Amino acid sequence: MTTDRFMEMALDLAEGVAGQTSPNPPVGAVVVNGGRIVGTGAHLRAGGPHAEVHALAEAGEFARDADLYVTLEPCSHTGKTPPCTEAVIRAGIRRVFVGTRDPNPAVCSAGIDRLRQAGLEVELFDHPRAERIIRPFAHFIRTSTPYVTIKTAVTADGKTAAHTGHSRWITGPAAREDVHHLRSRHDAILTGIGTILQDNPLLTSRLPRGGKHPIRVILDTRLRTPVQSNILTNKEAPVWIICGSEAPSDREHALTQAGATVLRQATPDLRIADLLLQLGERQIQTLLVEAGGEVNASFLESGHFNQFILYIAPKLIGGIDAPTAFGGNGFPAMEQAIGLTFDQVEFAGKDLKITAIKEGTACSQGSSKKLATSARSI
Amino acid sequence: MTTDRFMEMALDLAEGVAGQTSPNPPVGAVVVNGGRIVGTGAHLRAGGPHAEVHALAEAGEFARDADLYVTLEPCSHTGKTPPCTEAVIRAGIRRVFVGTRDPNPAVCSAGIDRLRQAGLEVELFDHPRAERIIRPFAHFIRTSTPYVTIKTAVTADGKTAAHTGHSRWITGPAAREDVHHLRSRHDAILTGIGTILQDNPLLTSRLPRGGKHPIRVILDTRLRTPVQSNILTNKEAPVWIICGSEAPSDREHALTQAGATVLRQATPDLRIADLLLQLGERQIQTLLVEAGGEVNASFLESGHFNQFILYIAPKLIGGIDAPTAFGGNGFPAMEQAIGLTFDQVEFAGKDLKITAIKEGTACSQGSSKKLATSARSI
Repeated sequence: MTTDRFMEMALDLAEGVAGQTSPNPPVGAVVVNGGRIVGTGAHLRAGGPHAEVHALAEAGEFARDADLYVTLEPCSHTGKTPPCTEAVIRAGIRRVFVGTRDPNPAVCSAGIDRLRQAGLEVELFDHPRAERIIRPFAHFIRTSTPYVTIKTAVTADGKTAAHTGHSRWITGPAAREDVHHLRSRHDAILTGIGTILQDNPLLTSRLPRGGKHPIRVILDTRLRTPVQSNILTNKEAPVWIICGSEAPSDREHALTQAGATVLRQATPDLRIADLLLQLGERQIQTLLVEAGGEVNASFLESGHFNQFILYIAPKLIGGIDAPTAFGGNGFPAMEQAIGLTFDQVEFAGKDLKITAIKEGTACSQGSSKKLATSARSI
Repeated sequence: MTTDRFMEMALDLAEGVAGQTSPNPPVGAVVVNGGRIVGTGAHLRAGGPHAEVHALAEAGEFARDADLYVTLEPCSHTGKTPPCTEAVIRAGIRRVFVGTRDPNPAVCSAGIDRLRQAGLEVELFDHPRAERIIRPFAHFIRTSTPYVTIKTAVTADGKTAAHTGHSRWITGPAAREDVHHLRSRHDAILTGIGTILQDNPLLTSRLPRGGKHPIRVILDTRLRTPVQSNILTNKEAPVWIICGSEAPSDREHALTQAGATVLRQATPDLRIADLLLQLGERQIQTLLVEAGGEVNASFLESGHFNQFILYIAPKLIGGIDAPTAFGGNGFPAMEQAIGLTFDQVEFAGKDLKITAIKEGTACSQGSSKKLATSARSI
């Protein structure tokens, strides 16, 4: 890995727009001429110009003989916009520094090859930050299912509530605001009917200076979501309700009338693998699971998750009957536990925020089926 | 706080001997003459010379007109050894840099006053590291009860075992070795009869290059510890068994014959407050609690602990019936949880190690009773 302040700046641009470019990946670009920044850009929304195009436009005539730093390999194919490689070549760029390759096996390296063929010097950084930024996109491209993040907040003794069910608040204001940021960066947020009935949440992204709301998804086998629940009376974001094949059709009618989209599975009980295919078909690339112990356990036990974000509050509540973040049956022996890698550990106010990646969720993984198998082998 | 490499070196010396000086505090000292280190020393064992005396001896004639860096205010009273202030004055030291004051209210600042009276220049650093190093000593001096550290190791979902009870191993080799270091730095280690019956542990400190063993303490209301248990057949460290007033005397006889010291409480059920007084009377300044959820909960609910060390393994085991680190009743609402401050967060191999201090456990606290009250007010 080469460290370079211009590449870091391009990565900052990409991170800044993460969550608002779906189904495209977040990308940043910087044009440098004679050691001076002459253009910066980010991909701002699907269908809009790519990062390179914005940065080249800003650079104008100064793009000639300049260096381009771009976090992701420029595309060489025509999608909703023309290929970026041609724009780069036309602008007279001399050298291109690439954060990471295109994760789509069908086009991987094609952009780099095209630039070299046209006589440009290309250096590939293989930058870990660049890879991390496009990890959800890479997962979706390869599996057609969303990148799943399970988020939970616990006391330092691992409880999600007191034994009485009281849970407001576990974490402090900074961690709670961080969760709203997380929501705004996800295409969809998911919870279970248990949480709807118990907490009656909105599941919107409530940030002091605004933020995109995720689509709200409820796992509700028998369609018990009340039409008067907050999530349905609030119209800020769509609500999708996933039900089993035997859910009552009068409830489906009532919920549809209340504005929800009801997605029926082919089996009486819900299956996480089918859910992810359903969401993937609807272009949900990133899914944030904010649910109780049973829903979390169904993602855990099926192996269908990629990332785990844990907020730990500096307090101890105790209680043998106090709920924890993962219920279900659980695995019977330690060597069967799902292995993680602690990726980032940071403070959010006085709380700790731990971001962990499921082992075997590296970008090189082939399919979600493969993930589920390899995840047990720690 | 002034940062200074000589003071940091003295602090390193003090940290190095932490756990081997009880009932005295760990102290380090460095003598500097004309910018050169001319003597270093640490207090190595109770009854032996203090750190200043070792450092001055090493410095010899070079102590004249030199600077002394010492992590704790030099004593001005005669204990097992003569007052250090007089040795410092006699050696001809010109300036003394002190890490932190003596935490004993009876003699606090007396050493500094004596040195100044003799014409030496004294600068007090009030160094957070210096305060942290003597925290357990300061607690003992003020309360006559041990500084209690609860240690536990959990999966990232807060479980101490699978639902089957399987728990070997949660953490990796580096974290497990770190626990043996922790043990060697404590005067005593405590567990409950449940852990003795289920895991049959040794509770010794097993380090690759050796280490002091803690005294092993068992909470065993009815004296059910088997005479053939590993902890009794292993003779590397004393075993103290705490029982209730109604424990059978034939069991007491059998366990005493097996080499244990049986300490009977005045009540049929064990009380943590009484336990800590019993241990304090026997000069136990530091107590490491390595126990199951019920014993941990009794320390939590009584408010009688000072520090919480949590190892988190990068794995998820799940299971609504999998045990967690704190059982008991627990507190009914979040605002009643015992507040902590996350003091240190570090990696031990692939595992995370979080050191948290109970809120209200600052050195300025008056008594353990006061701690128990203030701890609820987060």
